[in-house]
Amino acid sequence: MPLISIVVFQPEGKRVKIEVGSNLLESAKLAGVDLTSVCGGKGTCGKCKVVVEKMESVSPITKIEEEILTSGEISKGYRLACRTQINNSLIVRIPEESRTGKQRLQVEGIETPVKLEPFIRKYFIKLSKPTLQDPRSDFDRLMEELRKHYGVRDVGIEYEVVKPLASALRDADWEITVIVWDDKEIVNIESGDTTKRCFGYAVDIGTTKLAGYLLNLDTGKVMAVGSLMNPQIPYGEDVIARIAYKDHKELQHVVVEGINQILKDLCDKVGVGFGEVYEMTAVGNTAMHHLFLNINPKYVALSPYTPVIREGTDVKASEVGVEINPHGNVHALPVIAGYVGADSVADILATEIYKRDELCLALDIGTNTEVVLGNKDWMLACSCASGPAFEGAHIKHGMRAASGAIEKVTIDPKSLEVKYKTIDDAKPCGICGSAIVDIPAELLKAGIVDVNGTMNACPNLPRLREKEGVKEFVIAWKEETSAGGDIVITQKDLREIQLAKAAMHTGAATLMKEAEVTEKDIDLVFIAGAFGSYIDPGNARIIGMYPEVQLKKVKVVGNAAGTGARMALVSKTARETAEEISKKVKYVELANDPNFQNELMNSSFMPYADLSKYPETSKLLKKLGHYPKKSPPIM
Amino acid sequence: MPLISIVVFQPEGKRVKIEVGSNLLESAKLAGVDLTSVCGGKGTCGKCKVVVEKMESVSPITKIEEEILTSGEISKGYRLACRTQINNSLIVRIPEESRTGKQRLQVEGIETPVKLEPFIRKYFIKLSKPTLQDPRSDFDRLMEELRKHYGVRDVGIEYEVVKPLASALRDADWEITVIVWDDKEIVNIESGDTTKRCFGYAVDIGTTKLAGYLLNLDTGKVMAVGSLMNPQIPYGEDVIARIAYKDHKELQHVVVEGINQILKDLCDKVGVGFGEVYEMTAVGNTAMHHLFLNINPKYVALSPYTPVIREGTDVKASEVGVEINPHGNVHALPVIAGYVGADSVADILATEIYKRDELCLALDIGTNTEVVLGNKDWMLACSCASGPAFEGAHIKHGMRAASGAIEKVTIDPKSLEVKYKTIDDAKPCGICGSAIVDIPAELLKAGIVDVNGTMNACPNLPRLREKEGVKEFVIAWKEETSAGGDIVITQKDLREIQLAKAAMHTGAATLMKEAEVTEKDIDLVFIAGAFGSYIDPGNARIIGMYPEVQLKKVKVVGNAAGTGARMALVSKTARETAEEISKKVKYVELANDPNFQNELMNSSFMPYADLSKYPETSKLLKKLGHYPKKSPPIM
Repeated sequence: MPLISIVVFQPEGKRVKIEVGSNLLESAKLAGVDLTSVCGGKGTCGKCKVVVEKMESVSPITKIEEEILTSGEISKGYRLACRTQINNSLIVRIPEESRTGKQRLQVEGIETPVKLEPFIRKYFIKLSKPTLQDPRSDFDRLMEELRKHYGVRDVGIEYEVVKPLASALRDADWEITVIVWDDKEIVNIESGDTTKRCFGYAVDIGTTKLAGYLLNLDTGKVMAVGSLMNPQIPYGEDVIARIAYKDHKELQHVVVEGINQILKDLCDKVGVGFGEVYEMTAVGNTAMHHLFLNINPKYVALSPYTPVIREGTDVKASEVGVEINPHGNVHALPVIAGYVGADSVADILATEIYKRDELCLALDIGTNTEVVLGNKDWMLACSCASGPAFEGAHIKHGMRAASGAIEKVTIDPKSLEVKYKTIDDAKPCGICGSAIVDIPAELLKAGIVDVNGTMNACPNLPRLREKEGVKEFVIAWKEETSAGGDIVITQKDLREIQLAKAAMHTGAATLMKEAEVTEKDIDLVFIAGAFGSYIDPGNARIIGMYPEVQLKKVKVVGNAAGTGARMALVSKTARETAEEISKKVKYVELANDPNFQNELMNSSFMPYADLSKYPETSKLLKKLGHYPKKSPPIM
Repeated sequence: MPLISIVVFQPEGKRVKIEVGSNLLESAKLAGVDLTSVCGGKGTCGKCKVVVEKMESVSPITKIEEEILTSGEISKGYRLACRTQINNSLIVRIPEESRTGKQRLQVEGIETPVKLEPFIRKYFIKLSKPTLQDPRSDFDRLMEELRKHYGVRDVGIEYEVVKPLASALRDADWEITVIVWDDKEIVNIESGDTTKRCFGYAVDIGTTKLAGYLLNLDTGKVMAVGSLMNPQIPYGEDVIARIAYKDHKELQHVVVEGINQILKDLCDKVGVGFGEVYEMTAVGNTAMHHLFLNINPKYVALSPYTPVIREGTDVKASEVGVEINPHGNVHALPVIAGYVGADSVADILATEIYKRDELCLALDIGTNTEVVLGNKDWMLACSCASGPAFEGAHIKHGMRAASGAIEKVTIDPKSLEVKYKTIDDAKPCGICGSAIVDIPAELLKAGIVDVNGTMNACPNLPRLREKEGVKEFVIAWKEETSAGGDIVITQKDLREIQLAKAAMHTGAATLMKEAEVTEKDIDLVFIAGAFGSYIDPGNARIIGMYPEVQLKKVKVVGNAAGTGARMALVSKTARETAEEISKKVKYVELANDPNFQNELMNSSFMPYADLSKYPETSKLLKKLGHYPKKSPPIM
């Protein structure tokens, strides 16, 4: 018999029984408490910090923890949950900084008109009762009435509907609504006339966030929207960590639980029963797509990064555990490649790149950023491991877009004074994505950092200082914050931001090289993603997140992947278009490009090594008198 | 806590624990021992006789038992199992007469040539491994190779095959056999080249008997055949009793267990793995069909006797629990009406009535006898509740075609001496179906019974006697038998036989009247069924089981339903033909015919009330000098 201990997590007070020898991250998962883990328990990300009250109840501190935690933290009882084994029952506190938190979740996206042709049709029919003179089978009786009244023919019937059909017809006294999927199969029958109640559910499965939309399939209108953090996050913050997790079924199960939770909330909000929802669409990157469908995702993460299936996939709701009507259909949109998923297909659908004359560049910013370049004639796509910097991870005071997050920062180029705005106007406790774009741009415009991202010496500027050998710039002073200290951006943070934006720019530049087009040829830039509508496209351009085009050509489109999922939910044509897109888009593997490393280096400068490619930005910075202090080397 | 008793069944020595208060029939079911029950435990059939050793361990004898059991039986400890509650642990003996027994089960049927077009195709392909230059999805890679090498296109893939596809391909080192169903769907992939191993399973689900055939789908040849009593028998011997049983799921489960048992035996016999069998067909009457598919059969038994579904039905093996490959397909052939099932469709397929110029009459004899009349232009069908007399039930010394059963009887018309033959040449213990046809015919020819089935007074004939007011004729004397007494046919038995054959003849006559044809118009008579190939068609004609046609026009075709199931297993065309047959055959409800009762009365005479319809039989009997003693009244 293994020894069992009890772990209590504060402040929730959640209790969990677990075997002695298990670690605190496992206990937190078991308890279902909110604890960040980026690396999935490998002891490398340093994000799963917890405070242990009785140190004798756990294993001694490890070398890794000594390296990652400050001596101040160690003295306060901080530990990394994934490195701390349980010897005895204990109480653990999860500090605010280790929480994924209640975020402001962006679900809105552009509205793209689409032809209303839902897959689910409802037909009300009254049947004559069988007699000795007319003893047709129940199914023949039903089918002949469908033909007679609605011209519906050549449809099959789901086996699970046949089983109870006899009593269903008689219980309904032969007045029924027949639910037909794609003019092909009867998926259910309902008692009486329910034709006015026809609903669908579209879901965007982001690595970080789930967004759900409940739609009326008769009108195509959105009835309610909702979102939730992806419950897979405790298993690792990026797709690599998720794929590396030992039990994919568990990941499938938790993400479906999240999807069901949103559905429940939306249905409750507008008075719809789950059983009235017969169709769902899902988009997500290929790893999310495979995990959701219980398809082995292992080889998506291994070179040459092949998906198992590219095509759009239809499965019964009951087969994946989604709690719309169990007879309902779940359509996962097609993917393009191992690292360019159904979310990109949905982006292209929503932005209509596939039918535009204009040359378009689209970036869907996230932990992976997918880049698409093209128009109605051709499309290229790639994926860049941009990392979670813009989601607040790997940034000293980075956090998600939750209450108290600094979301907007300006620095007066003359006085060098800092202004910021926080979410909910709460006391600041960290910096979220949109401000993580603003800060380097503002520092650049103020001349505080240089073309290569290095903080200049500014002897008379108290905000710029050096601590333990690392330069940092103070955004908010201790007394203004709820963080218990100054909120700063460090030189190391700037390097992380440069790496992230360099990856994105490299993706765009590589596609442009492949297509032999230049910045001047680009007519439209779409910026999509989880913080797409909060980002300042001007500041993003200043730091060189995307090639310099005129700002009027840049459109922030919000959660375009969600828009695409909604289009595919209500329109057969949109679903067919998605299939064509998935076939037509050519995947470009960045690692195949011999110039990839050079391009990445050039892109790490702000805005870029070759300033001739950013003439407007160069002009602006020059006008402000600060820039460039020195010319970057071009690789 | 309920009190538990132990019941031991002899001679098997099977033990079962059961609650005090349960009855012995329930215990027998629980123990899985062989105990006949025709009425399904209602106390009306008197077939579930058992011998109780300690009468104080059970409830007192009931009025019903006193009526049904003889005083001799009661004194020997006989009880009806369904009327006997358990008070205490006890030993129960099941006498030979109460056993369904190990029967000689007829599975062979005519061989009808059919075009070999199996639904399952296997394709061996070698795939190139993915590279960074060729990172197509696993499914695209597979599909393109299928197209290139075999011209296979537009096939889907079963979701359950997609899930493990990535590892399946890599484990097989990219050399795989793709299993495609109906050129539509990939239902599995196997490692290496397995194209030479392609098997199918055809099953005839009789009310009484299951017959199974294992086929090589590459050659269309039968590899092994087997049969088993339908394990639903303990729940009631006829379809009405089965449908009335409270738990249809239990009936589905036990019949599938039987089907799996035969499959296991056949596979073991010829060295085939269950997983190598990807296709199965099933035929049976509509009640058996619905019960097998878990479709509510309730309304099949209630006027106007509507089936739930007429069409041929495809379900995944795993959905019904059949243990061929779980990805395999089970095709239940279409039915015609509530009382004319897939077995009739299969009969028509096997006898090729649907494409013959000749006018055909087919009888598939069983507890229900299905009658079909027609040719390539039109077909009529009906069902007659002929009852189980020809299966040995309701006949005093009736038994199934097991060892020791008298299967052939002749009576010398001069000496009135009786000769008989038993199965396995064992000492006789009862009379089985084929002899149950012979005896009345022989008695008729010998002048011992008259046109209305009444035993004449024959004072000098010791075999003909009266016992307790009922006339009986001795077939085998006590000293010849293993039954412990004379084996006789009683006047009451003759009435049962007359009722059964009258039902069959009425079915045929009603269809002929409906079609406005006479005996002279009939070119072919097919006799099919569980004892079809053992029956003497001449004797069957003498008693008037079917309208008098020349004997050379009568063909005994054995288990034609099984033949039809095998044809549909190996041939897509046969399956399409079955669908057309099921639509084309017009069902005639006997109860709708105002002349039904009169026809039944006329048909109860032997051979028939109107002797002008049986000229040859009349001539024969007249020649023998015995018949008719008096003319029957024509209704």
